[in-house]
Amino acid sequence: MNIIKGGVTSPKGFLASGVKAGIKKSGRADLALIYSEVPAMAAAAFTTNRFQASPVKVSKAHLKAKEHQAIVVNSGNANCANGRIGDLDALKMTEFIGKALLLDKREVLVASTGIIGVYLPLEKIETAVPELVGELSETGGLRFAEAIMTTDTVKKELAVQIRLGKATITIGGACKGVGMIYPQMNTARHATMLCFLTTDAAIAKKALGESLEEAIGDSFNMISVDGDMSTNDSCFIMANALAKNKKINGKGADYRKFTEALKFVTGELAKKLARDGEGATKFIEIYVTGAKDKTGAKAIARKISTSNLLKCAVCGEDPNWGRIVAAAGSSGVGFDPDKVDVYLGSLKALSNGMSVKGLDKDKAHRLFTKKDVHIKVDLKSGSHKATAWTCDFSKEYVAINSEYST
Amino acid sequence: MNIIKGGVTSPKGFLASGVKAGIKKSGRADLALIYSEVPAMAAAAFTTNRFQASPVKVSKAHLKAKEHQAIVVNSGNANCANGRIGDLDALKMTEFIGKALLLDKREVLVASTGIIGVYLPLEKIETAVPELVGELSETGGLRFAEAIMTTDTVKKELAVQIRLGKATITIGGACKGVGMIYPQMNTARHATMLCFLTTDAAIAKKALGESLEEAIGDSFNMISVDGDMSTNDSCFIMANALAKNKKINGKGADYRKFTEALKFVTGELAKKLARDGEGATKFIEIYVTGAKDKTGAKAIARKISTSNLLKCAVCGEDPNWGRIVAAAGSSGVGFDPDKVDVYLGSLKALSNGMSVKGLDKDKAHRLFTKKDVHIKVDLKSGSHKATAWTCDFSKEYVAINSEYST
Repeated sequence: MNIIKGGVTSPKGFLASGVKAGIKKSGRADLALIYSEVPAMAAAAFTTNRFQASPVKVSKAHLKAKEHQAIVVNSGNANCANGRIGDLDALKMTEFIGKALLLDKREVLVASTGIIGVYLPLEKIETAVPELVGELSETGGLRFAEAIMTTDTVKKELAVQIRLGKATITIGGACKGVGMIYPQMNTARHATMLCFLTTDAAIAKKALGESLEEAIGDSFNMISVDGDMSTNDSCFIMANALAKNKKINGKGADYRKFTEALKFVTGELAKKLARDGEGATKFIEIYVTGAKDKTGAKAIARKISTSNLLKCAVCGEDPNWGRIVAAAGSSGVGFDPDKVDVYLGSLKALSNGMSVKGLDKDKAHRLFTKKDVHIKVDLKSGSHKATAWTCDFSKEYVAINSEYST
Repeated sequence: MNIIKGGVTSPKGFLASGVKAGIKKSGRADLALIYSEVPAMAAAAFTTNRFQASPVKVSKAHLKAKEHQAIVVNSGNANCANGRIGDLDALKMTEFIGKALLLDKREVLVASTGIIGVYLPLEKIETAVPELVGELSETGGLRFAEAIMTTDTVKKELAVQIRLGKATITIGGACKGVGMIYPQMNTARHATMLCFLTTDAAIAKKALGESLEEAIGDSFNMISVDGDMSTNDSCFIMANALAKNKKINGKGADYRKFTEALKFVTGELAKKLARDGEGATKFIEIYVTGAKDKTGAKAIARKISTSNLLKCAVCGEDPNWGRIVAAAGSSGVGFDPDKVDVYLGSLKALSNGMSVKGLDKDKAHRLFTKKDVHIKVDLKSGSHKATAWTCDFSKEYVAINSEYST
């Protein structure tokens, strides 16, 4: 696998664009489009929040179509809690794009991110569509990645290439975070996390969905910024077959190779999201091992990743590891506390449930002064493991999220 | 029911004290004691965290004794994650008090709050015990309430009186919070929340335990400061029968009267905790109604109460109610989003799942400028309700919890 410079327009046949429609008060780009020159297979995973934003509902319905060619995205407004008006507005967004690109509206998917409970300025979007479509280009991936941002401080994109038989296939992706980040998405189903993946691989729709589900489980569904699950989380993938590989149909060797590459892309993008979490000054990786089952390992890792107290301690470079212990114990997962080891980087702080006497406090502190903080919890009760990612909790997070919205 | 000035020493026959043992670096009082002049019935509820602090384990074991006369408490050190050494240290604390007060150690209960993973300075405690016992007095409730504080900014105590037949019975209480606050305690089972209740009522041990469980369910188990569950949460009650009421045995009228009074005391103390949450500038009450069952109502209210985004919005006096909707939807509880109404104070922001057009934004903002913010979610799907309490999330919370601990 090679990592290449690029994003959603790196695979063959994908164009993208991003323009300023005037949805954001800041005047920044807020309307974005991905277009495949040929019909593509599509799959997606959406938030499991009981309140689903209108674009989530519309995209779910449109995914029943066989093929898709475009995804339209706005930032600055989540189009959520807007009832039937919101549903109609999201549908209209797909109609505008369908009309401009000569597609059936059901071949167009849609996503939104921004404030909840404010009606969409649909006229502004309609007005901007000709420019949005006109700007579509093979180098538009970066403009796309920029236009989907909300409180993000950096654009997040990535592309990789793998060989499948004689064909070189490319997977590209772009995503945005970076607040209201605690995704729990599945494929049957603000800031908000949105991820858009493209590939020129030839792959059946069913296999594509399964591959996406696998990739999401260990990546986006393992990150947290603030523990708040969004109403709009969405992760899309389009595969247009232009790489001319032998079509991936079942779960053979090519499926595995493709899925491993996809996992790499979603994993790296997920880490980019955690690293750019609202107000973040540090990146935290939590590795849980020795669990009886995968579900338990994941639940403990995620619980630790949402501990406000731990996140504050990391912000203050304070190796207050007792907060890791308290969080692990409150996950609802059963384990023997008298077996547990906790490591800060390579330094063991807890051994068989007992505080290590003579812990090198200076070394512990130095480990917490780094930009990347690594925590390991070994339950010593089984062979399953999981990794979760988060960022620290700073005064800047509070500042960002206490600003007046209206 | 009359609210009277007082706390744990208000009921007949209870003495208390608080002294400086030198556990806290600040030099503030950190060792506290409650003593009943006659043997009392005792009940308690403890954290459901998988990691249980040593004093929790020792108190659970000691509660098997028929009667109790004392509770010793230290602040500044949680005595958690210290393994067998910690267990022995907690036991020693009860032995010191037992020896000084001529009690069996099993008649003494113990609680700790403070940093996790640091061994207890047992010599300092042993040295301070004579002064602690010598200072016991009928007016010692306030000294007790002071010595159990950690990051608390105010002492929290309360006392009420009710009539049972011809007897006047008194219930007193003191508690401390105010970080690592997301209790989920039960009776079968840092900062940390600790609550100490005393009463001169005559009540059987079983009835006392049941009454405590009822009282905790709608009070302490419904508050959150940071969503982090402690390893040390404990709520104790001692009943010494000196009020000479007809002994409460089953679940008759006197049991109900007693339990209603106890619920009032725990409810008020719980609200005091939320109001004094670390860094809090505002108090938030979340009322969920129209739920299919009580469990669902509680789960939704609690989920909203732990939304960092909502708590930041309240801090910034920003009526960004979309964050309430997102939190409610992520509770895992099933409901029809198209029926839901959300109110900010008396102002309806969401009606049948739709953003209210022409919402009076100035009024919404004014409601969020108040010291107490009231939020109501009506699911309109049943007759069950629940209330949760929390505080806002301020930069000060981050400051308090990012200070270097070691």
